[in-house]
Amino acid sequence: MSTIDRAARLALAHLVEPGSRELGMLVRAVGAPEALVMVLHGHGVTEALAGAVHARLDATLLDARTGSADAWAERVALTLAGEMTERAGRLGARMVTAVDEEWLTALDDLTRVSRDGADALRRDTDPPLCLWLRGPVRLEEALERSVSVVGARAITHYGEFVASELAFGLAERGWAVVSGGALGVDVTAHRGALAAGGVTCAVLACGIDQVYPVSNAAVFERITEEGLLLTEWPPGTRPHKTRFLTRNRVIAAATRGTVMVEAGSRSGARNTLSYARRLERSAMVVPGPITSAMSVGCHVELRTPGTVLVTRVDEIVEEVGRLGELADPIHGDERPEDALDATQARVLDAVAPRAARSAEEIAAIAGVATRAARRTLPVLEQHGFVVSTEAGYRLAPKARS
Amino acid sequence: MSTIDRAARLALAHLVEPGSRELGMLVRAVGAPEALVMVLHGHGVTEALAGAVHARLDATLLDARTGSADAWAERVALTLAGEMTERAGRLGARMVTAVDEEWLTALDDLTRVSRDGADALRRDTDPPLCLWLRGPVRLEEALERSVSVVGARAITHYGEFVASELAFGLAERGWAVVSGGALGVDVTAHRGALAAGGVTCAVLACGIDQVYPVSNAAVFERITEEGLLLTEWPPGTRPHKTRFLTRNRVIAAATRGTVMVEAGSRSGARNTLSYARRLERSAMVVPGPITSAMSVGCHVELRTPGTVLVTRVDEIVEEVGRLGELADPIHGDERPEDALDATQARVLDAVAPRAARSAEEIAAIAGVATRAARRTLPVLEQHGFVVSTEAGYRLAPKARS
Repeated sequence: MSTIDRAARLALAHLVEPGSRELGMLVRAVGAPEALVMVLHGHGVTEALAGAVHARLDATLLDARTGSADAWAERVALTLAGEMTERAGRLGARMVTAVDEEWLTALDDLTRVSRDGADALRRDTDPPLCLWLRGPVRLEEALERSVSVVGARAITHYGEFVASELAFGLAERGWAVVSGGALGVDVTAHRGALAAGGVTCAVLACGIDQVYPVSNAAVFERITEEGLLLTEWPPGTRPHKTRFLTRNRVIAAATRGTVMVEAGSRSGARNTLSYARRLERSAMVVPGPITSAMSVGCHVELRTPGTVLVTRVDEIVEEVGRLGELADPIHGDERPEDALDATQARVLDAVAPRAARSAEEIAAIAGVATRAARRTLPVLEQHGFVVSTEAGYRLAPKARS
Repeated sequence: MSTIDRAARLALAHLVEPGSRELGMLVRAVGAPEALVMVLHGHGVTEALAGAVHARLDATLLDARTGSADAWAERVALTLAGEMTERAGRLGARMVTAVDEEWLTALDDLTRVSRDGADALRRDTDPPLCLWLRGPVRLEEALERSVSVVGARAITHYGEFVASELAFGLAERGWAVVSGGALGVDVTAHRGALAAGGVTCAVLACGIDQVYPVSNAAVFERITEEGLLLTEWPPGTRPHKTRFLTRNRVIAAATRGTVMVEAGSRSGARNTLSYARRLERSAMVVPGPITSAMSVGCHVELRTPGTVLVTRVDEIVEEVGRLGELADPIHGDERPEDALDATQARVLDAVAPRAARSAEEIAAIAGVATRAARRTLPVLEQHGFVVSTEAGYRLAPKARS
């Protein structure tokens, strides 16, 4: 790929809020350099897009508007890309676009979501043009086997325990954990994965230089050392409410499935889960007590078709893993009498703990033929369920319950 | 219907353990009087069935074996029916068969379940031949709108709260509650329904004269006065493990749906739920904390297709009620900013709480055209989200969060 292509992508990422469907379609249709020419000159694009780009062009770049349209666009691309690269270097960050090897192709699935809806909320569902990264692991390798763990900020002890256990277990089994950078489920999941020595990835809704919330500073620091801090927004960008919603599509698209742990009825995590569903990723939810307001969102989602209830790491891996990574079924304690057939079970039921009964009495009580009782009782005796006495049969001491 | 038909049904109910598929098919094919002739004489029936019947015939009836086959069968029918009727009278109970007006025709659906399986466990899935009842309400009227509430014996405070609340709420809305007679969910559901002044029905796995468990004696007494005590087993029959499983099919068939509240992985309630599913009744489950052993069975069931998660009475009624009895969706608190469109929301996000910003600055931060910001800000001001000052716009005090 040419330098100008990558530079144009970086410039567009800087000039346009992430997720723009109009811009994404344009880039896919004519390529990034030509798309930059078009948005800068307002040719063949909406006034809204051209206007938004111009609102972010600073005076120096506007003054550079001389010569041909292409020449100006190239100058804008190279200038912005240069500035961004220099800034990334200063922050210990790197930028990854679709033309770089480290790109996570799973994110391209977002074009599908972007295509199928025309409502206002889906205007910003296109794949990111550029990701800012900090951390020692390679994006596309780390997230090849990854699961997002999302949920509310205001979690209970239950939610904290669950998020932490699941993230720990996933990391222990070699799955990367992906979440946002918020308090509550997000930070608990990151801590759980880090505690297991695993890879965890925080997807931010602000610049990579922003520490938000401040109380998570220490965790972000550890993630930068052992995992991956990731965002689509250029340095300096503050987190806004609408940006969290836009960001959620990346959490859903970057992973094989999303697990929701504790969420109130208005939780933003429900938005992430709905992206997972639209992306045909696994949408998984942990239930909780119906008496807890922090599980209301979980239960509403579990009543939505296409949602899977999960209670254990095994069940999550069964959903997102390769064929054959099946969860062990839950067994109760096996009991000896489970092996009995229907007649044997009925006959055993009719034997009293202490009072000895004849085979005839036992048959009448059990509702089986006397012959059947006479045939069955010695078998039950042989297996230690009953003992025979002069007066008839009674339960063996260990079979009394 | 002739007296002899009903008498033959009562006699067969006395002589054969409930649920026998072989007997049920025979009665449907040739009628109860002829079926009685056949089982008494061992003609055209399995040795197991004939033998079981003979094991329960007492000496007097065996001695009465004189004259024609039909005459002996008629004598057996009338003798047993007479004895049973007299016994019912003494116990303040009544007997209801498929030829009586009070019969609950929903139970006939069990022939479908009985038909479709040949495994050992399904041998006893046929509808009851006779029900023993105690209580002031009519069976078919009381259970026309009914829901069963089932679950474990060893419940937690959570399970007790949930079973009680749901049963109370169902009864309050005119739904009868059906359950077994056990400790735990069963008795809690009955108490809840009674507390709401509703109808509750306990389906026993023993004779109607047996008080099992003894600690539920007071509740059984109240059910006898205000609801319905019901069983297929003749007086004197003791509860056995296999009888609980056989009984469960009646709980599932008698109601429009089954709600499972707290169940361990081995809970018998799972058996009731599986009957509900096979009967095409609604199979509903209340989730709980994944950390609770008493919800493990619930979560396994919720991972089974055809199971509906429920958290409120409304959701249960939506499942089992008539078309249009829909549960209200759960709403979070509506907030004024929910009404904003995507551009308005973005612009509002870019307005700072205290520092005033120009429309140009706000446009660049929000990533929208300056014109769009200039158009949107006065609208936001009009709705009280922002205030304009000499220096630009800032958040209205009440919009700060």
